Formats: sequence, C-alpha cells, structure tokens
Amino acid sequence: MLTVLWADQEPVPADDRGLAYGDGLFETIRIEGRRPLLLARHLARLVRGAEVLDIPLDQAALGGALEEALVRHGRAGAWVLKLQLTRGSGGRGYRPPESCRPRLIISAHPLPAALPESGVSAGMTDYPLVVNPRLAGLKTLNRLDQVMASRDLDDSLYEVIMADPAGNLVEGTRTNLLLRYGDQWLVPPRSCLAVAGVMLGWVTDRLIACGETVVERPLVPSLLTSPHCRGLYLLNSVVGHVAVRSLGERDLPLDDGLATICGPLEELE
Amino acid sequence: MLTVLWADQEPVPADDRGLAYGDGLFETIRIEGRRPLLLARHLARLVRGAEVLDIPLDQAALGGALEEALVRHGRAGAWVLKLQLTRGSGGRGYRPPESCRPRLIISAHPLPAALPESGVSAGMTDYPLVVNPRLAGLKTLNRLDQVMASRDLDDSLYEVIMADPAGNLVEGTRTNLLLRYGDQWLVPPRSCLAVAGVMLGWVTDRLIACGETVVERPLVPSLLTSPHCRGLYLLNSVVGHVAVRSLGERDLPLDDGLATICGPLEELE
Repeated sequence: MLTVLWADQEPVPADDRGLAYGDGLFETIRIEGRRPLLLARHLARLVRGAEVLDIPLDQAALGGALEEALVRHGRAGAWVLKLQLTRGSGGRGYRPPESCRPRLIISAHPLPAALPESGVSAGMTDYPLVVNPRLAGLKTLNRLDQVMASRDLDDSLYEVIMADPAGNLVEGTRTNLLLRYGDQWLVPPRSCLAVAGVMLGWVTDRLIACGETVVERPLVPSLLTSPHCRGLYLLNSVVGHVAVRSLGERDLPLDDGLATICGPLEELE
Repeated sequence: MLTVLWADQEPVPADDRGLAYGDGLFETIRIEGRRPLLLARHLARLVRGAEVLDIPLDQAALGGALEEALVRHGRAGAWVLKLQLTRGSGGRGYRPPESCRPRLIISAHPLPAALPESGVSAGMTDYPLVVNPRLAGLKTLNRLDQVMASRDLDDSLYEVIMADPAGNLVEGTRTNLLLRYGDQWLVPPRSCLAVAGVMLGWVTDRLIACGETVVERPLVPSLLTSPHCRGLYLLNSVVGHVAVRSLGERDLPLDDGLATICGPLEELE
C-alpha cells in the first residue's frame, strides 16, 4: 500500500515520520517534457534506500504514480520532478510501527539555471561531512549537513565542497566530485559518500564503457595541486556536469574531456 | 515571526523544510497537569539549536504558544508536549532562503508507560552512532540513526544502546547513559552525544551539587565488566531514570543511589 500525496493539492499530515525524524528518502528527477532522464537509476536508488530503511515500497504503485505525475505535470521543456517517500504516519517514538503505510509526496519544480560551459567557481566549506556507513550513498531526508554547508554559498560560488574529518574532499552540497588525474578519473570511495549521485553512476559507467580508467580513492587536497591534476568536475543529475574553474583562491586546470565523452544531457536515457 | 501550527487541527504545508531535509529541531516535554518539567532546560536546548541552525526564533512568540498549549492540552495527570520547530516553507534546494518564517508545530501525546523500579533489560545494537561535531547534542529532526537502531528493539528490551565507531557506548535511542563507577559517575564526552539530554543535564548538575564526582570519559565496554562498575542508568526527561539490570547476556550490578539523590521525577522544576 502506498499513499500518494500531490503536493500542489494537499498538505502533509502532521504525524508524518518524514517530518518527525527525516524517516524517508527522496529523488529529484529531470524531466524533458514527459520523458524522465536516468529514471532507472533514480528508481534503483530509491528502492535500495527503502530496503535499507525497511520501508515497504509497492513498486507497481510507485510506477503508476510516476506515470500519473508525468501526465499531470508534463510540460514543454525541462522541469524537475521530486518524489519524497516517507514511512508514513507513525505517532511519537523512533521505533517504526509494526505496520506502516508509506507516503509518496510528489511535486514539480522549475529547472535550475543552466550551467555555464566555461566552468564555475566553487569554495571549500569547513563544515565537515560525517557519514554513517549504514546510510552512505542513500538520499535520505536527513540532509542537515547539506543545509548547514550550503550556508557558506554566496552569489559568487556555484558550490561549496565538504571534506571528511580527515580533510579529504568528498562532495558538494548537491553535486558529486570527479577528478581527472593523469590518465585516470578519480572519485571518492563509495562508502564515504553522503549521496551516491545518479549522474556520478552514469558518468563513471560511461567512462568505463569508453575504455577510461575510473579509480575510487580518497581525494586528498594535494591531488589538486599536483601537475597530474587535469580538472575537477561537479556532477548532478538535474543539471549535468560542469568543470570547476576555481576552488577558493586556487585556479584549477580546465579539462573538456567529459563533455566529449558524455554528450548532451538531454539525450540521456 | 513564528507560524504556530496545532497538529490536532491542521496539516503541514508540503514544502516545509522540516519534511524536506529535517531542517529543524524538536523537544518533548513532560507536563504534569499544566506544569512543564525541566522547561528552562528544554527551551535552552531549543534556543541553542536554533542559533546553531540559524533559524530565527522569536522567543516571545514561542513563550506565548507554549502558554496556549498548556491551556489547550492541559489535563489531569502527566502527558507529553511535543514542539517541532522547522525553518518553515522553503522550496527546493538545501540553501536556506534569505528570509524564512519558522514554523512551530505543537502536539500533545500520552505519557509512555512508567519505568519499573526493579530496572530494565537493554541490549547493544550494532548500528553505529556517527555524530557530526557541529550538530552534537542538538535535538534536530535528523533522527534516522535513532530510527534505524530502534529496529533492534523487541518486547524483551526497554532500550538498545549505540556505540561509536570505536566501540564506546554513547547513548540509547531515546536515553542518555550514566555509569556509576567506583566513587565516580561517568558520562560520555558531551562532544560525542547525538542528543545532550535534558535529564542528563539535570542529573549531573544535581550530582555535582550533592558533592558527587561526575567525569566525562569514553565509556569503553570494559568499564561494565570492571569490579568498579556499580550500575548503569538510562536517563530521559519524560520518564526519568532507570537502572539497567541486564545488557545483552550480561547482568549488571544494580545501584539504587540515583533515586535517593534525585527524588521523585514529578517534583522537578
């Protein structure tokens, strides 16, 4: 059973566990007209998250709600579909009720501004990223770290990058990192990621399919000042990928390899 | 400005940031009739949390809403008042809006079952507690760790205790720990706590006022098997304190010192 709630039509019961404890998950999906991009990957992450959180998810009902959402909110051009899956209503107390009826909250949003082809400026935030290994990679509703770090954004910065307590770069508030380094592409170990981005997954699979070498390793800051550093990218499934032109005071080398390999965002399946 | 929402009368707008990201805080306060227990401590934690999260909190409006809540929900006997403070409505995107209107969601709940004077059984959970030092101690709406750990509760256990990644005992899902050890009382370092409990604060202040020695130190598991171990307590502001009679397979010594020192819960200011 799945309760579908259309956010433009009705509010959320005050006893929803998503509100009480962040007891749930979400996905934000880029839609071209009525065509979702990277849908299988978004749904796979949602399904895996529901398994980990032990939220019973009726996938047929989810699919039906998604189809209805595409009809209901479909429009010319690109937009963003947000799915929030909560454990549903549940009274007071952390312990999940023995039987719960999950709630799927569906909303449509405008597309953020397109990314400049010339790259973006980013900064480092000193707000540390601390990830519970049991929830690593899942897009849960517990996102205060991202909220807190994003307070260091200002109009001159497209993104701020969070480091783990050891000082290794892990991810932006809403983007994953990809570093072109010598003849390799480096990404932080999956087990350290707060959110394992759908675009990160697609891009690394694409790189590997093109014969490139993708390596998971901690992104120690000295990698960025090495002569092997060819460029740092930010990845996000709604806006695609963009090169980081400067990180704080430091100018970074600009690499244009990724655009060639990936092709236009709009054409992703 | 503070939007007050009575949970028994109206639902929550779907764009509330508490739901979207857990962008907020909460308190659960024991009320005797119309008299809140440990109110100053609850409010101090809420105010401090709002400062850290940079949620502008109109304390006069908060006080007014609280008074209204006590009249509205006041009843004979004890009950629980829950206050949820969110950053309010805020669209899509982690970055808080430049100006926000916080929302205070107020609800009343029955008192949980009283604690047995003879002590309780607890277990260890292998779900690790990982705390971001910037949010340590604050009762934020990001409580998935507690939800996940509480899945290890069963009807035979009153509580499960979480350890940090190093294996030190830190806290229960809804209780703080206090260990009577030799002639000292040990508590985990404050900087490690997910939630710095109001009852923990009251009890340690009371112990110190009575001339007892309270020491913050990591609760390594071997402390529990030492001959100096005199008893382990669980503390919670709604139900008080209780001795742990057994932790997993191990029986613990039972100490009755705390009840003598603290007096009846109902008489707390």
